Amino acid sequence: MHDLSPIKAIVFDVFGTTVDFAGSIVREGEEWNRRKGWEADWAEIVSAWRGCYQPSLAPVIAGEAPFRPLDDIHRASLTETILPRFGLDGLSDEEVTELSYVWRRLYPWPDVVDGLLKLRHKFVVAPLSNANVELAAELAKFGGLPWDVILGADLWRQYKPHPLAYDTAKMLLNCDDGEILLVAAHPYDLRAAREHGYQTAFLRRPEEHGPSGGKTADEPRPEDDFALVVDSVEELAAKLGGS
Amino acid sequence: MHDLSPIKAIVFDVFGTTVDFAGSIVREGEEWNRRKGWEADWAEIVSAWRGCYQPSLAPVIAGEAPFRPLDDIHRASLTETILPRFGLDGLSDEEVTELSYVWRRLYPWPDVVDGLLKLRHKFVVAPLSNANVELAAELAKFGGLPWDVILGADLWRQYKPHPLAYDTAKMLLNCDDGEILLVAAHPYDLRAAREHGYQTAFLRRPEEHGPSGGKTADEPRPEDDFALVVDSVEELAAKLGGS
Repeated sequence: MHDLSPIKAIVFDVFGTTVDFAGSIVREGEEWNRRKGWEADWAEIVSAWRGCYQPSLAPVIAGEAPFRPLDDIHRASLTETILPRFGLDGLSDEEVTELSYVWRRLYPWPDVVDGLLKLRHKFVVAPLSNANVELAAELAKFGGLPWDVILGADLWRQYKPHPLAYDTAKMLLNCDDGEILLVAAHPYDLRAAREHGYQTAFLRRPEEHGPSGGKTADEPRPEDDFALVVDSVEELAAKLGGS
Repeated sequence: MHDLSPIKAIVFDVFGTTVDFAGSIVREGEEWNRRKGWEADWAEIVSAWRGCYQPSLAPVIAGEAPFRPLDDIHRASLTETILPRFGLDGLSDEEVTELSYVWRRLYPWPDVVDGLLKLRHKFVVAPLSNANVELAAELAKFGGLPWDVILGADLWRQYKPHPLAYDTAKMLLNCDDGEILLVAAHPYDLRAAREHGYQTAFLRRPEEHGPSGGKTADEPRPEDDFALVVDSVEELAAKLGGS
């Protein structure tokens, strides 16, 4: 059994776990189609764009490339890969920036805001994301996410699952082992966090990659033994006694 | 003339500028008097306790002592100076911690919350304080301060007016020179910030050190030429067009 009573801070993965990036980008993409006369398949685009994510982060995590804020990575993936691959023409420089900032306009899953409002009565709540602070703050403003603290990758200039992310967040929130809980839809993130003294909650997001499937959602393995497995932040609040 | 139109982020000094530490600690101190049978003069205590502040920070700023979170400094000042000097006896270890955490229970000045709610429609708002992140987050929870981001001294492991504080905050909020405004009741802080590309707003807090005077509030000099001089955060919001 996991003793959840020491928990005083709860941190959340953001992309996929807290916000619906696939649905949000497809929705805004349809507007770009109308505005620019494109006929692009935005479900494919979001899949390809998100597909640039891990390959962009990997060299930094491996110590082979310098840290860059995720905003910059989103923009570079757009100009170097997405625009040419999908033949998206006719964007001014300002429009490229505006489109790359679609990653700042992602809607929270419908259970998130109410769940966080409950949890924050009892716990410090914060994102623990690969987003840079400014990006995470803009997402919070856009979606009304009531974080107590914004943690971002530019505070430790590394990306999850590098140990610096988990260790620095734990230090900044002044938590000992077992006093901090990570909530994520991605088992690899939870496994890494646990190695650094985190408690773990797997939050199922079966539509992370869109309603029509796309990439299959990653599932926990029996040996993962995460402390909690839930389907919403509201369910998490109920189980942790936030009110 | 100062061109305020580039401003996109507004950061605030906390102790004295955003929250009323003197009034809050005197109020809670009266409760400690009743609880412990003391007859202490809390206006004197808060003055002495705050008086430990700059001497504790100076060796760190000078590079002669390691960084410590402000929570730790408040506790050390309490046990090493305040309790013996004022003859405050009979506290358990838990009570010493509870009393030192009075610095987490400081009330905002009455204009602050409404002013921030207006400003945050148009700007990113954050504390830029010598408080550590956890302390600043607890103050925000206690007083309902609607920050977008919590910046704290443990992010740069230095104290204002060291350049690291201003430079790191500017970088984390992705601001160029002139795009970030510091609001403070202390001219020395504004002068240092301006050397690092900040715009400046002097916020008068004549009762920072209590209604009965105590230390005289620091006043700007004519040559300071701060961009704004205001008496409340609401006045600041009105001048900056937050709505």
